[in-house]
Amino acid sequence: MTEPVFNKIAIIGAGLIGASIARAAVQYGAAGTVNLYDSSEDVRQRAAGIALGDVADNLATAVAEADCVFLCVPVGALQAVAADAVPLMKAGAVLTDVGSVKGQATEALAAAADGRVHIIPGHPIAGTEQSGPEAGFPTLFQNAWHILTPLADGDDNYDAAVSTLEAFWTQLGATVETMDAARHDRVLAITSHLPHLIAFNIVATAFDMETVEQGEVVKYSAGGFRDFTRIAASDPVMWRDVFLNNKDAVLECLGRFSEDLAALQRAIRWGDGETLFNEFNRARSIRKAIIDAGQDSGAVNFGRNLPKGDEDEGA
Amino acid sequence: MTEPVFNKIAIIGAGLIGASIARAAVQYGAAGTVNLYDSSEDVRQRAAGIALGDVADNLATAVAEADCVFLCVPVGALQAVAADAVPLMKAGAVLTDVGSVKGQATEALAAAADGRVHIIPGHPIAGTEQSGPEAGFPTLFQNAWHILTPLADGDDNYDAAVSTLEAFWTQLGATVETMDAARHDRVLAITSHLPHLIAFNIVATAFDMETVEQGEVVKYSAGGFRDFTRIAASDPVMWRDVFLNNKDAVLECLGRFSEDLAALQRAIRWGDGETLFNEFNRARSIRKAIIDAGQDSGAVNFGRNLPKGDEDEGA
Repeated sequence: MTEPVFNKIAIIGAGLIGASIARAAVQYGAAGTVNLYDSSEDVRQRAAGIALGDVADNLATAVAEADCVFLCVPVGALQAVAADAVPLMKAGAVLTDVGSVKGQATEALAAAADGRVHIIPGHPIAGTEQSGPEAGFPTLFQNAWHILTPLADGDDNYDAAVSTLEAFWTQLGATVETMDAARHDRVLAITSHLPHLIAFNIVATAFDMETVEQGEVVKYSAGGFRDFTRIAASDPVMWRDVFLNNKDAVLECLGRFSEDLAALQRAIRWGDGETLFNEFNRARSIRKAIIDAGQDSGAVNFGRNLPKGDEDEGA
Repeated sequence: MTEPVFNKIAIIGAGLIGASIARAAVQYGAAGTVNLYDSSEDVRQRAAGIALGDVADNLATAVAEADCVFLCVPVGALQAVAADAVPLMKAGAVLTDVGSVKGQATEALAAAADGRVHIIPGHPIAGTEQSGPEAGFPTLFQNAWHILTPLADGDDNYDAAVSTLEAFWTQLGATVETMDAARHDRVLAITSHLPHLIAFNIVATAFDMETVEQGEVVKYSAGGFRDFTRIAASDPVMWRDVFLNNKDAVLECLGRFSEDLAALQRAIRWGDGETLFNEFNRARSIRKAIIDAGQDSGAVNFGRNLPKGDEDEGA
């Protein structure tokens, strides 16, 4: 075994992502030891019960000796946690996060900066619809992208810290990309945030239909609906914070989505089969592009790493 | 091997569903022999090349001796094909279809009725995003629902024919349900048709964003978008016909969906985290109901039967 990238890491927030980092860091030798802390005593006990690492009963104990602190909390909680953590960290350590929104996350982390620690926001494009410490598994980041959005004004020490953090995620199996926070938030608004909002919405719409029983919706969900319910099972607090903190980019996507949908609605109402065919045919070619690009056949197919397969579809 | 349910069946339209019926009927001994016909010479040659059955070069040869004729063509083509097929069929034979819309399909088939054949519309809740004769595979209908929408005014002979058709689909591994066509169309509008429309739409929206490159959308599609592209890869002609022929039920669902989405949009714009949390939390509980009902863990999990697994997701 080679030297670990970090001798000691601290994970704050022992949910799906935090627990998966803990498991992966140990399994792939990326960290010597793993401290964990969660503000919920229940979660701390569960994390200790499944031996996720050294579970501390306070933030100070968790972060004091850590070479890298991972804040794995909802984006809305980042600012308060970062403000508490930074003064307790040792000089030269790295502070990173896993938030799905990077503009607000960067502001939240930067507000806590005291010049002693390296603040490097990050976001693993990986997850399942499961939550909690028990949901974590070590292969979650295999073949997934990990996006870092480093601050603009870093010196050489900062750049070295970014390289070390990159090495950590690479060792966990991820491919690391660097981009600015605003670009990240625009890209994720359309590739992740809007799809989740749509999925949450269609599930709610389906269950409010008076003309169709909820039992029927469940029974015949294989016709396409079920795919949406899987996405819509994701953690509601995390997603609330995503939408509150990436408002502009999401509203921009949503406006376009609704406009395009109105055009399809009009085509249906007026029996305009040509418009429908052309739009559906175009969507099909985009799927082909994704498969051709290897984004759904191995290169970034972390679905294969899911602990249990409940993936399926029908038409 | 027990006696086949039908000595001879004819499959008109050798796409994903028709080819899968051909494969399954042979594999599970539900039919003695399988005739196929497709209006496309190219498809006929491909079907013959992969030995799907006895490929006829005209409709009359395919259906003349068949005990049951399966029309596996888009809903918009049903009326013309049924009108051609019925006079060529033998008395007492069954004419069924696999259309995703049953009100219009029933009218299309009934228009061809001559009192000699039993018209029993049907719809397998099964499929993949693949198309063409090569896409067919025998386990497609295993653990899937098959919905029959028999005509209201059948006599005893008709009821016996319905029972025989039920036995056929049961032998292919499906669970058969009977309901009236209008109810089918309302249920499928929300569980299948609206999800597909939304998926087609979001894929088009994503690729029209000026602020995000198409390559980026493809690259980071694991964040949720990829799930939608799979659904959106479905056959555009089939889906055009679904929306043209189930207009009222789809427009009703779509109106509610857009209304609900506008409420979420408003909550995002005004920073109303409570509304967002409550809606997301409710959607999550619906997913739980689907899993609890066994609709996503085996009972109707025909995703497990897909020939190749490109099912995956991220957040």
